[in-house]
Amino acid sequence: MLTDMATTIWTRRHILSLIDFTPEEYETVLQTAASFLKVLSGRTKKVPALQGRVVANMFFEPSTRTRSSFELAAKRLSADILNFSPGNSSLTKGETILDTAKTYLAMGADIMVIRHKQAGVPQIIAQEMDRLNSGVTILNAGDGLHQHPSQALLDLFTITSVLDPDNPRLELLKGKKIVIVGDILHSRVARSNIYSLTTAGAEVHLAAPPTLLPQDFRHMVKDNSQGKLLLHWELDSALKDADFVMTLRLQKERMTANFIPSLREYHRLFGITRDRLKVCHPDVKVLHPGPTNRGVEITSDLMDDPELSLVSKQVTSGVATRMALLYLIGISNGS
Amino acid sequence: MLTDMATTIWTRRHILSLIDFTPEEYETVLQTAASFLKVLSGRTKKVPALQGRVVANMFFEPSTRTRSSFELAAKRLSADILNFSPGNSSLTKGETILDTAKTYLAMGADIMVIRHKQAGVPQIIAQEMDRLNSGVTILNAGDGLHQHPSQALLDLFTITSVLDPDNPRLELLKGKKIVIVGDILHSRVARSNIYSLTTAGAEVHLAAPPTLLPQDFRHMVKDNSQGKLLLHWELDSALKDADFVMTLRLQKERMTANFIPSLREYHRLFGITRDRLKVCHPDVKVLHPGPTNRGVEITSDLMDDPELSLVSKQVTSGVATRMALLYLIGISNGS
Amino acid sequence: MLTDMATTIWTRRHILSLIDFTPEEYETVLQTAASFLKVLSGRTKKVPALQGRVVANMFFEPSTRTRSSFELAAKRLSADILNFSPGNSSLTKGETILDTAKTYLAMGADIMVIRHKQAGVPQIIAQEMDRLNSGVTILNAGDGLHQHPSQALLDLFTITSVLDPDNPRLELLKGKKIVIVGDILHSRVARSNIYSLTTAGAEVHLAAPPTLLPQDFRHMVKDNSQGKLLLHWELDSALKDADFVMTLRLQKERMTANFIPSLREYHRLFGITRDRLKVCHPDVKVLHPGPTNRGVEITSDLMDDPELSLVSKQVTSGVATRMALLYLIGISNGS
Repeated sequence: MLTDMATTIWTRRHILSLIDFTPEEYETVLQTAASFLKVLSGRTKKVPALQGRVVANMFFEPSTRTRSSFELAAKRLSADILNFSPGNSSLTKGETILDTAKTYLAMGADIMVIRHKQAGVPQIIAQEMDRLNSGVTILNAGDGLHQHPSQALLDLFTITSVLDPDNPRLELLKGKKIVIVGDILHSRVARSNIYSLTTAGAEVHLAAPPTLLPQDFRHMVKDNSQGKLLLHWELDSALKDADFVMTLRLQKERMTANFIPSLREYHRLFGITRDRLKVCHPDVKVLHPGPTNRGVEITSDLMDDPELSLVSKQVTSGVATRMALLYLIGISNGS
Repeated sequence: MLTDMATTIWTRRHILSLIDFTPEEYETVLQTAASFLKVLSGRTKKVPALQGRVVANMFFEPSTRTRSSFELAAKRLSADILNFSPGNSSLTKGETILDTAKTYLAMGADIMVIRHKQAGVPQIIAQEMDRLNSGVTILNAGDGLHQHPSQALLDLFTITSVLDPDNPRLELLKGKKIVIVGDILHSRVARSNIYSLTTAGAEVHLAAPPTLLPQDFRHMVKDNSQGKLLLHWELDSALKDADFVMTLRLQKERMTANFIPSLREYHRLFGITRDRLKVCHPDVKVLHPGPTNRGVEITSDLMDDPELSLVSKQVTSGVATRMALLYLIGISNGS
Repeated sequence: MLTDMATTIWTRRHILSLIDFTPEEYETVLQTAASFLKVLSGRTKKVPALQGRVVANMFFEPSTRTRSSFELAAKRLSADILNFSPGNSSLTKGETILDTAKTYLAMGADIMVIRHKQAGVPQIIAQEMDRLNSGVTILNAGDGLHQHPSQALLDLFTITSVLDPDNPRLELLKGKKIVIVGDILHSRVARSNIYSLTTAGAEVHLAAPPTLLPQDFRHMVKDNSQGKLLLHWELDSALKDADFVMTLRLQKERMTANFIPSLREYHRLFGITRDRLKVCHPDVKVLHPGPTNRGVEITSDLMDDPELSLVSKQVTSGVATRMALLYLIGISNGS
């Protein structure tokens, strides 16, 4: 069932960025993720799609949440997993990142899931893998301040599933108002979401203090996009009639680096509270990529409110979406 | 075979403490562990009982021994395992423990095995999981100075299996004298063992210097218990006619904190040696939860004596007992 | 197919060192590795040979490359794997290495893959396992400056496969000139390779500065060996007409310890470059055990040249060779 649907469409080898994702690709991811969400809520929970294939989890930047999500997704697809931990690695012995990747390639890795604190590392590895005609596919699991495509795709799947659980699709977002609040400047999550949401035709509003939201974000939206991108340096105008509010994690280091005066001040101006949501659409939902600083970018009670918060749904969608991505790039490039 | 026996009886959702364990529950654990010990000594060594289920190993306090034991038990039951390592985790980014647990829940964890240096953490997570009607079951793998139920249950299985390998059961312990020696004050192993052993009708003797054995341990034994609890501040009277001697690990930090004058002094007064065991029952056996400080709480030759030491048997019993626990809470709460 | 071939021959319980490996044992490893290389390039990639068996990966000295290679090899054989990480272990609580090994034994480990920075640790554990009649087999994954047998065997498999991909065997090396260049003194890889290559009848030339190549290496070759061992304190005479050049990793600490004057000086005298290879046999190939210091012991372009460099082939051969070793010692000692 999955096979029929997907292999006829998917041709992209690597998932590095959403900048050139087509509407058809978004739709395929949404439909495939929806199928896997059904698998996950069934009895068996596993499919043999990637049996014998090796997924190398190469998290040069530590992460429990995203790594566990990809690991579980790969296990549900019956793949063999190699976990790379930079602490114990040859990198500390002076090996280059490309050499590490080529070592995993030579061991037999079919898919490499890569996170690195420096933007562009997954691309560089992908280019090298292509140059070698290796057939290996790369999945960017977050690179510096650049992109985090699997997070934006799981957000897209979460939002469209709220609007139509049986048939999540792009057109559901046409004309919807989605507000992204917080440290836009340092957020690869925001950068990836802007592409997916505007492609779907949503009206994306960014809200942050000027230090965390430079003017040049205006230019991110593509000319042919059906959606719009608007900037706000205060929260209330942004939230007006919003359908979805996506808050971002505020890294506490930002305060010491003088991007914000204090966490309390930040919370007062840009923290999401039940009260502030009153100007939104009555059915408004709140998202957060996690991990959360409760009481800073979002109040604790709001985050735990099952009527308003999609935080848990995002995590569940994450496993299904990552299964979809591993499956699509795995099957289309499979031997 | 396993299914028939166990599911008819087991109703407990979480295993957090032995304080309210019933004799019937102990018997079920013993019988199930005995069945799994047979599986482990057979050719196949694996059963498909938890296929598709996710066991999250959440060891906030590092541990190789207990984590490996639970991990192998889960693998023998064909579960998928997620290992959480606090070093790389979102906790360092300010996330709360409950948020970490809820993230694993949303990913699809069915059973969480939790160790934490603070007493009560597994209970708090269990309450939250119940409040959310999540169906997730919690297994306490050691919380602070509070409880370590799987260790006491594997000790119970080890002791009763020595007395009757074919049919380990509580009544075998009736009237047996079991001595727990060492740092009782700081031992969650001792606390859990006191409940199981007195419930089984054993006479439990605690022996330690007064600094490591406060008077209020007297009150631990329940009024309706068939067993007895007695305190000793020197070793010889405690050991007289003992059937089993359980020594505890002495953490060397205790010395610097002035609980004991010196390791040598401690060994002279409370270290278990071949010579000191002469006053015990001729068939006496020695247990230790590990890891051992050889030459401090027990002499090296005694620990390696296959006639006297049950240390290796405890480790083997550990895998079978943890399979039993994962199986019982997994099956009774299974979808 | 695999079973027929191998079990009739293999009797060695542990693989600790190549010092007493017989030609027949080398041939069996080569043939078995060749079979597994075919499995790895097929569709299924997995065999059920070690299903239900437990492989404990005990890397007391950290390593990503060798650990991942053994882990993947064990997974391809369908074994269950326990990963031991010294950072979180009982060793930090004062437990001895033998106690750690006995704990894994009692848990049910069938094969222990051991790396330790101290020479002799795998042997000591193997002796204890034999003394206990445990049936456990030990695979030395590198011990101090002593031996690294799986690396030398994968090198042997790589070299003989280049000479005859369909039938790698010892006699192919008769009269071949193989040069090992670099920090011979501190290299367990060199020590193991000297035994395998001279047993095969190759002429092994060692080349290094005198500080890294003491005279007593002359005595390593066995009297009854068909091969020869020659020492060079400069590179050009060593490389003349060489069929294979094996460079070793230069640990940068060597410089601060005054073994070499500077990395640049070392590269000028002993670094392998395209230019220097001109005196070799026209079909010369270069090997390196990795991780590499590009620009020190080998130039970057040479390492990446698919015509000259066998580095990637070594990594691929590594998985097949380790599958062969786990299989041979697993099957011959299996219940």
